[in-house]
Amino acid sequence: MPLKRVAIVGVGLIGGSVGLALRERRLAEDVVGIGRRSVSLEKAKRRGAVDWTTTNLVEGVTDAEVVIVCTPVAAIADTVAAVANTAPRATITDAGSTKAEICREVRRVMSAEVVGGTRPPAPRFIGSHPLAGDHRTGPEYARADLLEGRVVVVTPEDSTLPGLVERISDFWASLGASVELLSPEEHDRALAATSHLPHLIAAALAASTPEEWLRLAARGWGDTTRIAAADSQLWTQIFLQNRTAVLDALRRFEHRLSVFDEALADGDAAALATALQEAKRIRDAVGD
Amino acid sequence: MPLKRVAIVGVGLIGGSVGLALRERRLAEDVVGIGRRSVSLEKAKRRGAVDWTTTNLVEGVTDAEVVIVCTPVAAIADTVAAVANTAPRATITDAGSTKAEICREVRRVMSAEVVGGTRPPAPRFIGSHPLAGDHRTGPEYARADLLEGRVVVVTPEDSTLPGLVERISDFWASLGASVELLSPEEHDRALAATSHLPHLIAAALAASTPEEWLRLAARGWGDTTRIAAADSQLWTQIFLQNRTAVLDALRRFEHRLSVFDEALADGDAAALATALQEAKRIRDAVGD
Repeated sequence: MPLKRVAIVGVGLIGGSVGLALRERRLAEDVVGIGRRSVSLEKAKRRGAVDWTTTNLVEGVTDAEVVIVCTPVAAIADTVAAVANTAPRATITDAGSTKAEICREVRRVMSAEVVGGTRPPAPRFIGSHPLAGDHRTGPEYARADLLEGRVVVVTPEDSTLPGLVERISDFWASLGASVELLSPEEHDRALAATSHLPHLIAAALAASTPEEWLRLAARGWGDTTRIAAADSQLWTQIFLQNRTAVLDALRRFEHRLSVFDEALADGDAAALATALQEAKRIRDAVGD
Repeated sequence: MPLKRVAIVGVGLIGGSVGLALRERRLAEDVVGIGRRSVSLEKAKRRGAVDWTTTNLVEGVTDAEVVIVCTPVAAIADTVAAVANTAPRATITDAGSTKAEICREVRRVMSAEVVGGTRPPAPRFIGSHPLAGDHRTGPEYARADLLEGRVVVVTPEDSTLPGLVERISDFWASLGASVELLSPEEHDRALAATSHLPHLIAAALAASTPEEWLRLAARGWGDTTRIAAADSQLWTQIFLQNRTAVLDALRRFEHRLSVFDEALADGDAAALATALQEAKRIRDAVGD
């Protein structure tokens, strides 16, 4: 049973890949791409990620059945509120790398409007985070199979209607992803460790490498620092939105690093081997 | 002009790849694989990396024109000395990830023998380090093109005869690598930053990730921690052989990390963006 119109706000790597997958799998009658810059929209259209595009949010979402907000995280809450105002029947989700502040902000904006307005609180938004990022952004890197076999975290809150959880879970599953349910706060604590901290560490490692030696950087350096090439502005927003949890994860990392540091400073082969084995055990558990 | 016999001591990922490249490019009349374990040697033979194998070092190197010692770093110096004793005409190099301690130890062992013996100092050894490692080891991962387009650092010392530098440089170039000449000490300082520190950081990051969240690890975590899966024993040796330079690189990293840490703790978007941009600039300079 295909969806009628799906609107994607922000057609970059994730938004574009969602569009490509929807169209390739014929899951929607119509996919509209909404964005600020016509150049990006044109790219997404040429890439086959959307049926048509508009820079006008109201025009794009008015008749949409599902709206996925794929803007940078700092813009998500306001965009969700604007969508909810315009398309009172649409199911709305996002694809942001943080969840607690976005969900809190969406609740705040929506209930503020309720106080002065006539609409009932609209629990038609539920947060999502497809774990399928890349250090490259833009619709030119979008792929129809980006979400296949990947995890999408969906973050129900106490106020979320059960039907909405199911509806959005089915949506992501229809694109080939497997869905994990976590509260927004649990999501942020976990992702601080599994995504945000690695970005911070990769950046610090890249920046600490003396440039005259970069020609001697081989595959290990390349892998370990790859995500330092990610967009600086997007990641500044992500770090600030999840500041407390990232700082906690950083403390855990520093503690672990001090174990390596001491073993090395002491020339303690046994302690070093033990610490490396423990790291290898955890890394091997995840696979390539 | 093909070489006569080339002997490879330790036919794992690097040794096996050297053998495959020599045979595929018909650069040697005969490639012999030498090792302790017949099982590994058999694998290398089946993989096509060597013409024949032996567990007897003397038998393997006696008539060799070039010998490449690809054992774990802690065993390289003694193996080089044993090869030099047995094959007085062979040109000898290694493929170890550290250089200063190996070169120092080779000089020490060789000159100690000279005092009591009749042989002149034999400057037929020169250190090499092909920057083409992997977190996987063993001949099953060997590839004829592993060194193509990669850098091999060759480390002449004051005592090294110029002809030897050229001979070994030509050898690596014939396998498709480009050669960089550095002193053993320069090599170790550079590689501490571009290879050894990334291994330490990747291991600390992997080990600091709470295991219940590993299912939420996506590509960024996977890239950043990939080399934490490397062999713990091999890397313990590497870290200990290059302890001082790795500790220096670690201090630079910690200093840089504290910049990110402070910016994050202060919620300073501008400082965070600047630090991330600087990291991206350095990472982008290297390419994928």
